[in-house]
Amino acid sequence: MTYWQFKMHKNSKKYFKWILVTGLLLIVLYYVTPWATSGVDIRMIHDDPMQKLHTRILGGLISDYPDIAYKIKEDAARRLAQNTCVCLAGEETFHLPFVKLLFPQVWAQNFLHEFLETHPNPEGIKQQRAQEYNNYQRRSYSPADVLIVAEANSPLQYPTQGLEVQPLKTILIPGLGLKEEARLNHIVSLRATMGTFDVVATVDKVSIKGEGEKHMTLSGPLLSALNRQLQFVSYTNTVFHPKTADSIEFATEGHQSFFIIKVGHRNAPRLYNSGYNGEYNISALVTIATKTFIRYDKLKDLIESIRQYYPTVTIVIADDNEHPQPVTGPHIEHYIMPFGKGWFAGRNLAVSQVTTKYVLWVDDDFVFSANTRLDKMVDILEKTTLDLVGGAVREVTGYTATYRHTISVENGGEEGDCLHIRLGYHHVIEGFPNCVVADAVINFFMARTDKVQQVGFDPRMSRQGHLEFFLDALGSLHIGSCSDIIVNHASKIHLPWSKSSSMKSYEKFRYSSTDVNNNLKNELFYFKNRLKCMTSQ
Amino acid sequence: MTYWQFKMHKNSKKYFKWILVTGLLLIVLYYVTPWATSGVDIRMIHDDPMQKLHTRILGGLISDYPDIAYKIKEDAARRLAQNTCVCLAGEETFHLPFVKLLFPQVWAQNFLHEFLETHPNPEGIKQQRAQEYNNYQRRSYSPADVLIVAEANSPLQYPTQGLEVQPLKTILIPGLGLKEEARLNHIVSLRATMGTFDVVATVDKVSIKGEGEKHMTLSGPLLSALNRQLQFVSYTNTVFHPKTADSIEFATEGHQSFFIIKVGHRNAPRLYNSGYNGEYNISALVTIATKTFIRYDKLKDLIESIRQYYPTVTIVIADDNEHPQPVTGPHIEHYIMPFGKGWFAGRNLAVSQVTTKYVLWVDDDFVFSANTRLDKMVDILEKTTLDLVGGAVREVTGYTATYRHTISVENGGEEGDCLHIRLGYHHVIEGFPNCVVADAVINFFMARTDKVQQVGFDPRMSRQGHLEFFLDALGSLHIGSCSDIIVNHASKIHLPWSKSSSMKSYEKFRYSSTDVNNNLKNELFYFKNRLKCMTSQ
Repeated sequence: MTYWQFKMHKNSKKYFKWILVTGLLLIVLYYVTPWATSGVDIRMIHDDPMQKLHTRILGGLISDYPDIAYKIKEDAARRLAQNTCVCLAGEETFHLPFVKLLFPQVWAQNFLHEFLETHPNPEGIKQQRAQEYNNYQRRSYSPADVLIVAEANSPLQYPTQGLEVQPLKTILIPGLGLKEEARLNHIVSLRATMGTFDVVATVDKVSIKGEGEKHMTLSGPLLSALNRQLQFVSYTNTVFHPKTADSIEFATEGHQSFFIIKVGHRNAPRLYNSGYNGEYNISALVTIATKTFIRYDKLKDLIESIRQYYPTVTIVIADDNEHPQPVTGPHIEHYIMPFGKGWFAGRNLAVSQVTTKYVLWVDDDFVFSANTRLDKMVDILEKTTLDLVGGAVREVTGYTATYRHTISVENGGEEGDCLHIRLGYHHVIEGFPNCVVADAVINFFMARTDKVQQVGFDPRMSRQGHLEFFLDALGSLHIGSCSDIIVNHASKIHLPWSKSSSMKSYEKFRYSSTDVNNNLKNELFYFKNRLKCMTSQ
Repeated sequence: MTYWQFKMHKNSKKYFKWILVTGLLLIVLYYVTPWATSGVDIRMIHDDPMQKLHTRILGGLISDYPDIAYKIKEDAARRLAQNTCVCLAGEETFHLPFVKLLFPQVWAQNFLHEFLETHPNPEGIKQQRAQEYNNYQRRSYSPADVLIVAEANSPLQYPTQGLEVQPLKTILIPGLGLKEEARLNHIVSLRATMGTFDVVATVDKVSIKGEGEKHMTLSGPLLSALNRQLQFVSYTNTVFHPKTADSIEFATEGHQSFFIIKVGHRNAPRLYNSGYNGEYNISALVTIATKTFIRYDKLKDLIESIRQYYPTVTIVIADDNEHPQPVTGPHIEHYIMPFGKGWFAGRNLAVSQVTTKYVLWVDDDFVFSANTRLDKMVDILEKTTLDLVGGAVREVTGYTATYRHTISVENGGEEGDCLHIRLGYHHVIEGFPNCVVADAVINFFMARTDKVQQVGFDPRMSRQGHLEFFLDALGSLHIGSCSDIIVNHASKIHLPWSKSSSMKSYEKFRYSSTDVNNNLKNELFYFKNRLKCMTSQ
């Protein structure tokens, strides 16, 4: 062998080794990397095949009885929700003094007139809203919301509620059974859309077909053996989705049953460490949040009054002044925003910065007093399912308001829904005699930080706004109101010539451009909340 | 009559009229004002009487078969979730080059050791976490999550899923029926906890007892008449709660069935008006959000690069510098925070100010290029159920990262859960070949503003943090990642002597106090997320 042949021989051995190793690595890679992973169609739902099947069956179960007469019961029938709704203003019936105080008038607003008719492109915006809403519905669709009716006299026993599996994980399905008379062969089948079935143990004398597949059949001559086998059936979710439900069909000859298995991660807790040691540590539990504009003098009074009672509570201040002034002091966090960015934007900002379990909202012209018992608010939030509790605001005259309202939204069909806001509350809270359950309260409240952050204050609301937050909170927050936790309102009684220039500035900014502001509110009611009209007190 | 007698007579008539009117008003007031409203107990759930009853019945339905043998099927049984979990670090198996690249190592962290054992009061904090979690569970309990099993061979037909009523409103209950052989008297009963039953129409030959009450019985000799009557049964929710479920029992002689009616407001849509006119108007649809600290030069480069492609898109900047510099320009919103308030606090602030349908998160050292196709991101968000889509970040070397991860949380019992984070994704998305579904992505993503605001960036995370957001998003956000939407990363390659003083400042601040930062992260994992340990890649 020449020198070159020898060298090449040595090199080729080395190359060969590396080619072999690389080849092996590539083979391992092929099996390890998930390019064999199936695709998933997450374009918005067109058809749910299981729902179609079930709708047909439902039609069969809910039969009609055309030859049996019935008589409508007016008062009961009237309570049923309709597919349309109206907003009627209240009529003034009595013309006695104090009537307006006792029976506050009901106002009505129709967004189809007030907003749509003055819009440059009413057809376009109508269509767009319908499109956005349609997409929203398709995106929120879940098989867990579909009506399912259990058939009578079915030999099938099955779970109708309560099954949950984490994405791509496995659970046992409890409660499956077949209860029929003895026969030559007993047979049941299971069908899923987003997962597969298997058995975690096998029982003699039962045949299983389709283990590990979307369609599994179990059969055998001995009913008790089949039922024992059914106790070992497992479901594995195979199509990933963070929050959905799989429709399961469980059937035997002549009978079908349907139930769903929720697929999703468990609701993760967001726990706050508040260092509870027998009494409430307000500084560790509560952050005070406010928004300020122009009224630095009032803000200063507020801070001083807070410090009298709560020297170390953190105060978060959102500030959208044109020429911001420094606001300093221990445990004070001052945030500067673009000039005039807005009221709800400021509220959303302040609340987004809170790191304690509870947040207390105050206006920058409040003044704390000995009755401003934050520990009482913490107490009711700790001991009940309330997420937010309002207090009372006392004017210089002594008049104290809790501003409790109830809110309901009636289904309105394509034109949009009807919003109804009324003064009042739902129930008194047992164990807390000065407190009630309502849907909206005054702008002095303490709430669970995580829940308020989830609802948020829509930054699209730039000027006035209050009940809009509670409309967004509807169905998410459990709201209460206690009349014995009181904060004072800095005096609003000023003779016109004694108003300071800053106060005049403030009022001009806040109360001007009413038309622009109303139009913005109406647009939000019409488009964002998909309302047709509202009545309020 | 004297003058005084006359005057008194006239006056007393007047007084008498006013006394009468006042008296009438008081009477009206008494009936109108809800002091007759019943109280509601919203202290946290102790017992659900319906659940106790059902648990007993469940025990009867899911019988045991002690004399039937079974054989465990190992591979299937192993997939079942256990009540405990462990975090095991991966072992280094191969010592070949590039192995670490192909098989990234799995790291494990145990919070019971790393956090609890170094805590000044481990027993106290353990107890507190258990207490907070316990309260959280009691507060989140809903009868809609309880396991219910449908009995086989029951003559009762009833709805098992899909019933919803708004608080204090009324619905018809569909699907109720009794299917049995003819007998002298057919009888069914309905029982509720938070509402009452009624009928909206009456049918001849059917007796009804308890109309308008929590317990209603219907009976009669003619089965078809009874079934026709059952089609007119209504339920009215009477105990207000914004989000709960009433447990309904529907029974006949010898048989009981259970189902729930969800009580709550419908999920209100939050629609955004984006002026869609055939093509995506990026300025109307998207707001770009970022947080900046020290690196004003890089921020300037970012803004200039954005303006090359998107001249009118709003850019929201959260800034917690010690000495903030002005950042101005059209469509730029600059927010000043307290010095060093933090990374996630800044992210939460920026996102809280967005008023468009989508928000694009960028780091302040990114640079837009012709590949930074925001319209592609909008497209996939418009057409699928994704809530968030990540892109790819290209380093100066050409290396492009998508940082896709999958996340799962294993149930761990009292000590807490186990968090597992792995590189990778779940599926390719049909119709979008460069896109996949995952649980976490890189810090360059576009998302639905309302969904991201609902999850939020926890302001308790002050320094480094990334995957923590995706842990909070688990189960809420549907997350995707596309590799063909690319943003450049400003060069990180600097020779030590050529680093600017601002860069040195930045690195010192961000990467210092690692211990303090890690301890904070560990506290959040241990307490807030209630974890025991985690494994990650």
